[in-house]
Formats: sequence, C-alpha cells, structure tokens
Amino acid sequence: MPKLNATHDPKLKSWIDTANTAGCNFPVQNLPFGVFSTKGGDKRVGVAIGDQVLDLAALEAAALLRPAGEERVFAVSSLNAFMALGPPIWRSTRARLSHLLADGGDRALRDDASLRARALLQLSEVSLHLPIEVQGYTDFYASKEHATNVGSMFRDPANALLPNWLHIPIGYNGRASTVVVSGTPIRRPLGQIKPPNADAPIFSACRKLDFELEMGAIVGCPNAMGETLTVEQAREALFGYVLLNDWSARDIQAWEYVPLGPFQAKVFATSISPWIVTAEALEPFRDVGPTQEPAPLTYLQQREPSNYDVNLEVAIAPDGASHATTICRTNFRHMYWSSVQQLVHHAIGGCAMQVGDLLGSGTISGPDKGSFGSLLELTWNGANALALDTGGERRFI
Amino acid sequence: MPKLNATHDPKLKSWIDTANTAGCNFPVQNLPFGVFSTKGGDKRVGVAIGDQVLDLAALEAAALLRPAGEERVFAVSSLNAFMALGPPIWRSTRARLSHLLADGGDRALRDDASLRARALLQLSEVSLHLPIEVQGYTDFYASKEHATNVGSMFRDPANALLPNWLHIPIGYNGRASTVVVSGTPIRRPLGQIKPPNADAPIFSACRKLDFELEMGAIVGCPNAMGETLTVEQAREALFGYVLLNDWSARDIQAWEYVPLGPFQAKVFATSISPWIVTAEALEPFRDVGPTQEPAPLTYLQQREPSNYDVNLEVAIAPDGASHATTICRTNFRHMYWSSVQQLVHHAIGGCAMQVGDLLGSGTISGPDKGSFGSLLELTWNGANALALDTGGERRFI
Repeated sequence: MPKLNATHDPKLKSWIDTANTAGCNFPVQNLPFGVFSTKGGDKRVGVAIGDQVLDLAALEAAALLRPAGEERVFAVSSLNAFMALGPPIWRSTRARLSHLLADGGDRALRDDASLRARALLQLSEVSLHLPIEVQGYTDFYASKEHATNVGSMFRDPANALLPNWLHIPIGYNGRASTVVVSGTPIRRPLGQIKPPNADAPIFSACRKLDFELEMGAIVGCPNAMGETLTVEQAREALFGYVLLNDWSARDIQAWEYVPLGPFQAKVFATSISPWIVTAEALEPFRDVGPTQEPAPLTYLQQREPSNYDVNLEVAIAPDGASHATTICRTNFRHMYWSSVQQLVHHAIGGCAMQVGDLLGSGTISGPDKGSFGSLLELTWNGANALALDTGGERRFI
Repeated sequence: MPKLNATHDPKLKSWIDTANTAGCNFPVQNLPFGVFSTKGGDKRVGVAIGDQVLDLAALEAAALLRPAGEERVFAVSSLNAFMALGPPIWRSTRARLSHLLADGGDRALRDDASLRARALLQLSEVSLHLPIEVQGYTDFYASKEHATNVGSMFRDPANALLPNWLHIPIGYNGRASTVVVSGTPIRRPLGQIKPPNADAPIFSACRKLDFELEMGAIVGCPNAMGETLTVEQAREALFGYVLLNDWSARDIQAWEYVPLGPFQAKVFATSISPWIVTAEALEPFRDVGPTQEPAPLTYLQQREPSNYDVNLEVAIAPDGASHATTICRTNFRHMYWSSVQQLVHHAIGGCAMQVGDLLGSGTISGPDKGSFGSLLELTWNGANALALDTGGERRFI
C-alpha cells in the first residue's frame, strides 16, 4: 500500500558520511525540512542530512533547485510558500534532493567545493526556527487509551469514554500565536485555580504543569470555505509531521473547562520540533491502527493504513540534573483516529483549511502504564510520583 | 469617566449633508473604518460618512493624511497595518478626519473638487470587504442570561450556571479562517447528528442552524508570549468593535461538544460587519454593566464602566419574503463580562495577543424573552415556533 520509490531505498547511502552512521536521525531517506539561520544571517529553508543542514536557498540561487521556476521559495522564513506549490512539487523536490545527496546520483553539488562550502553547514552551528507560519492550530484527542485514562480519572471509570468518542475524531481549536519551536522558554502560566474544598478560586501560578506527547500534522493544501475533503484528498494534503508538546496547566484546566473546553490551560504555549518529516519520507512506516469498532461513518472510512510506526519517548531533566530520565516510551501507531481522518472531519462542515494549519494528534498513550503520554496519566493525577534516575521525583512539572 | 473630545461633540455637523440626517448611521461623530473596493479597483481603507465612503488611500496619496509618515497604510487590503501604529495614531487620525469632514474645520478636502471626486464615493457603489486580517479568533460566553438559558435547557434549571461562570470570562478558541464579511454566502454545514433515541449518529446536513447575536472586539496592540495585561492596558489595546454573527449548528453541537467544547458546530462560518466602530467613537456610550457578585479576582476588576449602551436587533427575511421580521431587540449593555475583562483574561496565562485578533463577546441576551440573542433561546430549543410577519414560522434556520 505505501508508495515507495527510489528515495526510500534502504540501501541508499549519501556521500555525506555522517548520514550513513547507524542511529543517525537524518539519513538520506529522511530529508526533513526546516528553517534555520546562521549568526547574523537571514532565516532560510534547509534540509537535515547527517550532522549537517543543506541550505536550499543556496541551491536555489545556484539554480540546482528551482521548484517555483524563477520565483524563490527557500530564501524565506517559513515553508509555507514551498508547501503552497503542492504535492507534485513536494515529491519532485524530494527526489531531486535525494539525487543530489545520494551516492551515485547527480554530482552537481558533490563536485562543487565552493557551493558545498556555502550550502552545507554544521547543524551544531545553526539556529533552528519555527518551520511554518502557523495559520490555524487544532488539537485532537485521538488515543483511546488517553481518553479512557482521562475519563476514568475525572468522570466514571465504568463509562470512561463519552458516547461520541468512538464516532468523532474529537478536537478543538487551539491558539496559533503561541506555537513555538522546541527549545523556546515557556513561562509557567498564571491563572485561576480552585483548590479542593475551597469555596472560591484563587489566582496563582500553575502548580500542575504537564506535557502532552503528540505528533503534529501539517496541512499543505488549502480548501475553500464550504468545500469538504475525501479521505484521499486529505491524505494528499498533509505535507508532513512534527513532534508536538501540548503544554497543559492541569489545575487551570480542571476549573475552566466546562462547558466550552480547555482555553487558558493550553493557550500559553505549544512546542513543535524544528524539523518536519514529510509524509512521503514516512511512507515505509505506514501501519494499520487499532480496529475501529463500530465502523466510522462513511466519510471517515480509510481504505489504506493511515497510522505510522514511529517510536516516541519523553525524558525529563530537572535543572542541574546530570542527565534526563526517560519516563514514557510509546508509538504513534497506537492512535485510534489518524491525522487523515482528523483532517477529513475538520473540513466536513465546510471549514476552510489553509497552508500552514497544524493538527495536533492528541496525546499519544499506549496500552501500558509506561506508554502514557502525559504526567497526568503517568502519575494518575499526581497520586503516584515518578522517581527520577538522578534522584528526587516528579508528579507534575 | 468617558474621555470625550471635539470629535464627540453632538452638535458637530459635516459639510456632507447626508451625514447630518436624523437616523443616519454614519454621522461625523462615528467615522467607522472599513475596507472597500470599486469595480476593477484594489482594496483600500475607507471611512463611512453619510451615504459615502471616504477613500483614505486617496487622502494619503494627496498627503492630507499621513499616519505612518512616508509609509502607506491605507492602500492595502486590511486595517492591520494602521492598527499596528498604536493608539496615539488611532486618536490623531480620527481627530484629523473629523477636522477634514466637519463644518468649520480644515477645508483642504472640502474645497478641492478634484480630490473630492476621487476620494468620496457613494457607499451604494462600492464593495465592502473583511476589514481586518483575522489573526486569532476567540469566542466568549459572557451574558448571564444566555448562559442561564442554555444551562436551563441542557443541564439543570436549578443550577443553570456552572460553578466557574461567575469567576471566569469563559471563552474558547474559534476558527479564524472562516471569519467572513457580512453578506458572504454560508453553506449549511454537513456533519454528525445523533437523533433523539437513535443508537448511533447519522451523517446529515444541519437541521438546527442558528445565529448568535454578538459584538466582536478587535485587538489593535500586541503583547508578547508570557506577558500579561492589566485592565487599563487591555482597554487601550482594543481598537474597535464590529457586529458579529456566530453561526451555530445546534444539532452538531449537541453531539460533539463534550468534553472539549464546540468545534464543527462553529467552524464553518462567523460573519462580521464591514465597518469597525472605534472604541473612541463609542466613548459617549460607555456604561456600567451588571453588578459582578461575587467580586471577580483582582486581575479582572474594572475601575471604570466598560460596557456600552448599544441597541441591537436581529431580523429574519426568508427567501422571497417582502420584508424581514425583527425577532430580537437587545442591548450590548447587558453583558456580564466586558470585552476588556475578556482580553485581560485571555492574556493572563501568557497568551500572545496579536494585532487583528477578534474577540466575540458571546451571545447578547437580555432579561426579557424578546431580547434573547439566538433562536435556541427564542424558541426554547425549537419548542416554541416564532411567527414571521410575512407568514410562516421558524424554529431554526
């Protein structure tokens, strides 16, 4: 079912040696897109390869890469202009990059020492930025294990899933203005908290700060208001995926969330990874998700595997700790609702989707306790502290 | 308390006669900002006066108005660039426009026939557009009568208000991509509906389409992520107000909204008026709101009246009807939480606010049945049909 091509060939090596190291995150089969800058330089689009970043603006200037003809789409501060060119250009650009970077491919970059010096930079020497201009940000709630855990804790363990959950990829609009690149400092939010047994709320800094381990799907194709998308159109419209941390203030959330959902508990920050792994690069990892029973309504039915086998981990390093403690090991494969289904549902009422929309997958919790994607679940709302390898414990952040 | 100045003088007349007519919406004391175009022309910023629109791009080109010095902020398709100049410039521009349009003021426009011909256009001959580039859209739930009506219908009449409601200006993130200018056709949304007594949802066009009468406050000053706003800063940051219709699909909403709030029930469309009435123009109409009891937490306490005495009506004209039937008469004064408090609360956790953020007030329902701001309330969820003057009746749209 996955549509594999030469760019996916597991035997492919790069003439950039560090890309061929076992365990390297950026082999020639990956080629994730991001936005970077060097000291004093402008932001521009790059692709990670081995321990380096390939400056696509430099390749565009050298006419080795011209996805938009005469127009320049890489000497800019986000990937939105490139994404707007559409899926055939995404694919041809990836194929071209693979060909320029693989052993036995086009030697135009490999053999040009001056261009190599301009276009290949050490990853350790560049700054990485938010890769897209986030238009709309929507966050979903799509792991059955996560929804069951939360429902058990706060509602009724016997009826943990609400009646709509197995029918609708439940989601809500998030706040786009505070989506930031991973590493951006986050201020602990202030807000209203109602302590147990208090008569009235107090104003306080959050005492139950949490993460939510998610992936974010990035929409690369727009649709007009009033138009809907089929599953096939939605699959084609997803440019790629980022890691996403849906920072959450649990105490603020508990007090504010009825009846209109989370607001101040979430709007203070959402972190995403600087690198977007394209949907095309993830093709070999396509996998079936959990069986959907009852079958979803027709508009949500997928004929192809739409989940991805991607291992994910969360580690915490308190200030001053010598190393981080891994507290969660899970897999993106566990999601009950896929990003494709989420996008289809998002547009079904006629919502205009835009190039640069970000869809948070929802917390990625697996079936085992060690695979829960939030401290809320890992500590069961603070009841069971997590011991850290470096001493001490954590219930929340 | 209101800060009145010469632009507010009720005796002020314009040399444009139609602005002085009793009942005219656009006297020289109003001067609302919008974006318009003429046939084949570019979008540009204008101000309504009498039955005409004053082309601010033409005044800027003629150097009669230069709020940004050499830079042009009116020959553009939204007010965002002008708003970004900040409150002192908003005020000086309004004063300058008043002086150019009032009897006894600056005659530079009045006496220049060629400029008048270029810069003053009949409102009936221009197209009006979305006045701002909407960055974030947030919708609130701030009328006590509305929240009580909804709580009585769907939860418990004896405990209609949820415990948080009197403490928090409850709100949720909306969808910015489908905020459109009034008059834009709206497609009846498709989605999931669970009929009463059915075991499973069905896929259907919405059968309970509704409006919500709101005002929208427009944020003109940004704050960085992690910064909070005082009440005074929030008041200063609001550029102006629009009329807002928060289109709602009640049947989709009823099925989807737990636990994360409304999503597909709202994202298909939100209509706003083309004209932004500035906060400064509304100064004479500042009014105290309902007593807030219990007193809000300190960060939400207002020392000045922050509501506005603005009469509002809703009328419905079915296809082919000879005229519209007025079904609601209410007043913006009724809101329990003001737009100022909503903005303060929005930023309290550190949410970055942007120039062009839109804050929906929430449905504006008053104490009497005829003052309810939605069909949901006017027909008590469809139980009591409304008779139309032109025959027939309506429970929903």
